[in-house]
Amino acid sequence: MLHDDRLFPADATTRDIARNLFKSVRNLPLISPHGHTDPRWYAENAPFPDPAQLLIVPDHYLTRMLVSQGIDLTALGVARRDGQPAEADGRTIWRRFAEAYYLFRGTPSQLWLDTTFEDLFGLTEPLTPLTADSHYDMIVDCLGRPDFLPRALYERFKLEVIATTDAATDELKWHKAIRDSGWTGRVVPTYRPDTVVDPDRPGFATELDRLGELTGCDTGTWVGYLEAHRVRRAAFKAMGATASDHGHPSAATADLAEGEAARLYDKVRTGTAEAADKELFRAQMLTEMAHMSVDDGLVLQIHPGSWRNHSPAMFAAYGTDKGFDIPAPTNYVAALKPLLDRFGMEKELRIILFTLDETVYARELAPLAGVYPALRLGPPWWFFDSPEGMMRFRELATETAGFYNTVGFNDDTRAFPSIPARHDVARRIDCAYLARLVAEHRLREDEAYEVASDLAYNLPKLAYRL
Amino acid sequence: MLHDDRLFPADATTRDIARNLFKSVRNLPLISPHGHTDPRWYAENAPFPDPAQLLIVPDHYLTRMLVSQGIDLTALGVARRDGQPAEADGRTIWRRFAEAYYLFRGTPSQLWLDTTFEDLFGLTEPLTPLTADSHYDMIVDCLGRPDFLPRALYERFKLEVIATTDAATDELKWHKAIRDSGWTGRVVPTYRPDTVVDPDRPGFATELDRLGELTGCDTGTWVGYLEAHRVRRAAFKAMGATASDHGHPSAATADLAEGEAARLYDKVRTGTAEAADKELFRAQMLTEMAHMSVDDGLVLQIHPGSWRNHSPAMFAAYGTDKGFDIPAPTNYVAALKPLLDRFGMEKELRIILFTLDETVYARELAPLAGVYPALRLGPPWWFFDSPEGMMRFRELATETAGFYNTVGFNDDTRAFPSIPARHDVARRIDCAYLARLVAEHRLREDEAYEVASDLAYNLPKLAYRL
Amino acid sequence: MLHDDRLFPADATTRDIARNLFKSVRNLPLISPHGHTDPRWYAENAPFPDPAQLLIVPDHYLTRMLVSQGIDLTALGVARRDGQPAEADGRTIWRRFAEAYYLFRGTPSQLWLDTTFEDLFGLTEPLTPLTADSHYDMIVDCLGRPDFLPRALYERFKLEVIATTDAATDELKWHKAIRDSGWTGRVVPTYRPDTVVDPDRPGFATELDRLGELTGCDTGTWVGYLEAHRVRRAAFKAMGATASDHGHPSAATADLAEGEAARLYDKVRTGTAEAADKELFRAQMLTEMAHMSVDDGLVLQIHPGSWRNHSPAMFAAYGTDKGFDIPAPTNYVAALKPLLDRFGMEKELRIILFTLDETVYARELAPLAGVYPALRLGPPWWFFDSPEGMMRFRELATETAGFYNTVGFNDDTRAFPSIPARHDVARRIDCAYLARLVAEHRLREDEAYEVASDLAYNLPKLAYRL
Repeated sequence: MLHDDRLFPADATTRDIARNLFKSVRNLPLISPHGHTDPRWYAENAPFPDPAQLLIVPDHYLTRMLVSQGIDLTALGVARRDGQPAEADGRTIWRRFAEAYYLFRGTPSQLWLDTTFEDLFGLTEPLTPLTADSHYDMIVDCLGRPDFLPRALYERFKLEVIATTDAATDELKWHKAIRDSGWTGRVVPTYRPDTVVDPDRPGFATELDRLGELTGCDTGTWVGYLEAHRVRRAAFKAMGATASDHGHPSAATADLAEGEAARLYDKVRTGTAEAADKELFRAQMLTEMAHMSVDDGLVLQIHPGSWRNHSPAMFAAYGTDKGFDIPAPTNYVAALKPLLDRFGMEKELRIILFTLDETVYARELAPLAGVYPALRLGPPWWFFDSPEGMMRFRELATETAGFYNTVGFNDDTRAFPSIPARHDVARRIDCAYLARLVAEHRLREDEAYEVASDLAYNLPKLAYRL
Repeated sequence: MLHDDRLFPADATTRDIARNLFKSVRNLPLISPHGHTDPRWYAENAPFPDPAQLLIVPDHYLTRMLVSQGIDLTALGVARRDGQPAEADGRTIWRRFAEAYYLFRGTPSQLWLDTTFEDLFGLTEPLTPLTADSHYDMIVDCLGRPDFLPRALYERFKLEVIATTDAATDELKWHKAIRDSGWTGRVVPTYRPDTVVDPDRPGFATELDRLGELTGCDTGTWVGYLEAHRVRRAAFKAMGATASDHGHPSAATADLAEGEAARLYDKVRTGTAEAADKELFRAQMLTEMAHMSVDDGLVLQIHPGSWRNHSPAMFAAYGTDKGFDIPAPTNYVAALKPLLDRFGMEKELRIILFTLDETVYARELAPLAGVYPALRLGPPWWFFDSPEGMMRFRELATETAGFYNTVGFNDDTRAFPSIPARHDVARRIDCAYLARLVAEHRLREDEAYEVASDLAYNLPKLAYRL
Repeated sequence: MLHDDRLFPADATTRDIARNLFKSVRNLPLISPHGHTDPRWYAENAPFPDPAQLLIVPDHYLTRMLVSQGIDLTALGVARRDGQPAEADGRTIWRRFAEAYYLFRGTPSQLWLDTTFEDLFGLTEPLTPLTADSHYDMIVDCLGRPDFLPRALYERFKLEVIATTDAATDELKWHKAIRDSGWTGRVVPTYRPDTVVDPDRPGFATELDRLGELTGCDTGTWVGYLEAHRVRRAAFKAMGATASDHGHPSAATADLAEGEAARLYDKVRTGTAEAADKELFRAQMLTEMAHMSVDDGLVLQIHPGSWRNHSPAMFAAYGTDKGFDIPAPTNYVAALKPLLDRFGMEKELRIILFTLDETVYARELAPLAGVYPALRLGPPWWFFDSPEGMMRFRELATETAGFYNTVGFNDDTRAFPSIPARHDVARRIDCAYLARLVAEHRLREDEAYEVASDLAYNLPKLAYRL
């Protein structure tokens, strides 16, 4: 099913170069500095659930496509918040998915799934309604075996380190359990304080109280609130964290005087803030986080520009992360200026910028990261973590920012079994891009080999301080 | 003049695949679900006028390029509104065009024209000042023959159905005449109510009155006005229409309470509306049209984002559609939200979105159409209905929306003789894109064959309910 | 180090075509209608300074990349405004640069430098820390020879004409000296009045006074101020100028009534203007300049959309042009309308538009230049004057604007020795693009040869009236 030259350009000369470059990086260990796997998996090391629950139900890339063609989320096993029943039978869900699998032609989801099917589960026939049952059985079979337990997979995948993404109020009990278990795998948390930074999140006030309890700080005051962040960041660092992460509607930053910031905090804390106040508070908090990063060395990731839960009806029925998050135009040059004016020239600060608006790669992000020492460019994110998306990123960003203001790949996934497939795609595309540069005599071959391994392995370790 | 491998990638492996894919779709019947040919042609079946009047004068893609290089529209036979004389001699216009034909190097216009010259009129030499006269004579000769009458061409082109675009107040008399003639060609109208929906159109009030007369509804009230739309939509359906079409300055939609909508209608009807009121009225009407589509099943096309008649001087002198319509940035994520909040999850509703802002393909349109069941993506439109434009569309939209949230090709043309050339270009580019996917082992060859014929034939029929 | 096929597509058929096209244009004389070399060089014809001072210190493309990786500008010899010492030793700067040269992999800077190293200085080894010293010595050696003096290089580069960029208040003494010297090289000034047009420029009021003194016009009045511009434009024309150039934050234009414009001028002149007034004044002045161009025939260049001196700290420390100018989204369709409404249809007016926002190529600039006779599209500018950037420009603009609404290449450089390398890259990329069109049978080979020499030589002469 999988061709060993997949994703390489068809031109024979270029393909030869790409193939050789890829050979030199394909077996390097995986660095996974940002993602959404569940630390509990590594802590408990229990078998994964049935194929549908593992591979389909939680993957909104998959379910959204079926929804777009008129299939209900409940028919795919996604639970409604009102408790109405969703399909519970894994095999039924799996068959429905197999019927619709042709919808994914030309998408990265198909590429990831097919690679996972073949490389991990040994399935050599394409998934179709005819093969649905045998595939299902084969995967069930695998998942029951000890070599498919989470820790075994971690090792088989040659993961060197994997970061999870954790709420500021998460007590990190699964991370502690992993540590305590004596297992040698390296699973580190990431400080993601959105629930206590974004006043638009449901339960914001409750989360602030919980942050106060957890830290013993008085989150009723601006000073106490900031201190609580410092305390939690230190706790995360103690569990191995090297980074924080911030998912904001925009990239807005602010740099308010302390009194003003304190008054703003009072507003958002007490629920009297207008929309503009909330935006300003998030903006101020990015600058505060940068300040803390200067002090404690955590790498600061910004993931802006997603319009979350675009459909209120679907949000009401199913909740967050159901495929209804839509990118919006995002400005960085004006938005980041307050933060950059204050900390942009800090050599020890590391801010990694992501985007869902590809128009900014060449116009804004590469020119910014190509001059401010604090900035680096994260890899293509979400909809753009795809062969064409990754190629566009290199074509648009490299000429201004070079390779060394980028940070290698993030798999950024909830889908643990797909991790090797995702790194495989990224490494192939980077090699394809480098091969074109070599074939067009824009880069010497010895340089290309160095860059290939930097992108695959060295840069993510360096950028994330891992 | 035409190479049989035109538009296929140069790489031999990829070209072979593209050639074979194209072989499988090149002779499929043409589905033309959206365009601007004149129903009168098919009704009267009279000979087309001289070559210049047929191919050059009405084609603003052609005349605008000559204008850009300092040639007057009158010199090209385009009539001024003040009645001052324009060039009337077809041969003189043709010669002027031939002198300037080098300006079209690298443009789709050259490709369409050359294909039309060779395939339809049997001209094998390029159009130059030296060949201008003989080309003209040869085309004159053809146009006088019975096998070049509109109906004969319809059949020769293997058109299975062609949609025209008709004002809400059009009585569809030519469509009736076609029906009554017993001819078996399928020419269907499309409900395009811009003149009674957009208060900025000249003669809006008069058109409202005319709409009232035509339908017997009281267009002096909001309720009567909506009913009049329903009546006209039914009349269009009765004549074979399967779609409506809406050319708005933006993609704004609204969902006002009924009283508010009625008051807004009064304002625009009586000419007391501000610019913002007019925009809101158009926005409200898109949602009303979606509502009617839920009821009557007409497919709703939205063509937003053209700044019409950018030059007031040229508009004053020559009127609309003279090449002075310029794209502007267009937002969809916020703009469509009111409509989508109300009807986006309707499985039976079909909205086809077009754009003149390519930055939204990957950022907005593909993510939206990749999850909302009511949405599909129209093909590249206007300036982007071109080899590079169509390729960018596939590269930017497919990874998120797949192929099956797109609807195949629209020729969208006034230039009837160019229809096969336009479908030829579209089919070639889709095959070239698919061939690259196959050559890079991102799609299996059997899948590519299926997708190729879906894009060329099945999807347009399905999407437009034809 | 340099391969003779560099920048050509790898596909053998396409490469062959590209190679032959390039052969036909590679030795055509260079036309350099816009750039930033120092007229004093040609006037004095003195040896260039040491390699670092010539090639690195003044080139913000180079220094910004090193800054982005934590290297201080002072360490690279860039002087601080406060007089604190910067590295003065050329060899030390050169070594630091060699250490960091790997950062430029995949960037046009590496391509230009390597080409300059090999073609001009005969260096055949890549620049690395190991070769840094021998490269430095070899360049020092060259720069001391008479055949490396500015005029000798001008001739060796086969420059036919080079334009400099000069303030409105520049007395053009070096241009006079060149004329008086009897040297046959053609160095012409360009009228760049930003310091007397943009009220946000430091020293605006002083510059207005100076403009008054220089011209004998009363710049205390709107009428006198406009007359002063006319006088200076005439003086520039007398020294050979064929163009003006305008670097504005946006592309905004305005067309105020005379009284209103006069009142606005009073405000900006007396320092009582708000930000919006200043923007409006710049906008009005673009239209005034267009008016003067209609009268005196100077070609009007607009370079909008750079957010100058984004970092206030770096601006305070080092001043302008230190790599901290960042592109911002730029609108043209609305912004240019007032100017176009007035002068867009003037056949004798020539406005050349540049952009730092690539999203406008296909959406705005090509549609505008494809219809307004006054408009032409400048080549990719600044960050986009690169292989990928130039290729995107052709792919995005050609299908709507054709080749003949573009104006060939600008090297736009301060780095005199890199001029041939820059034209070499541009000619190669244009040939690569044309070769693809030929290989895909979208353009006949005879047409491609004509277009190649038009782009390389004829169009810049024609467009800039040189």
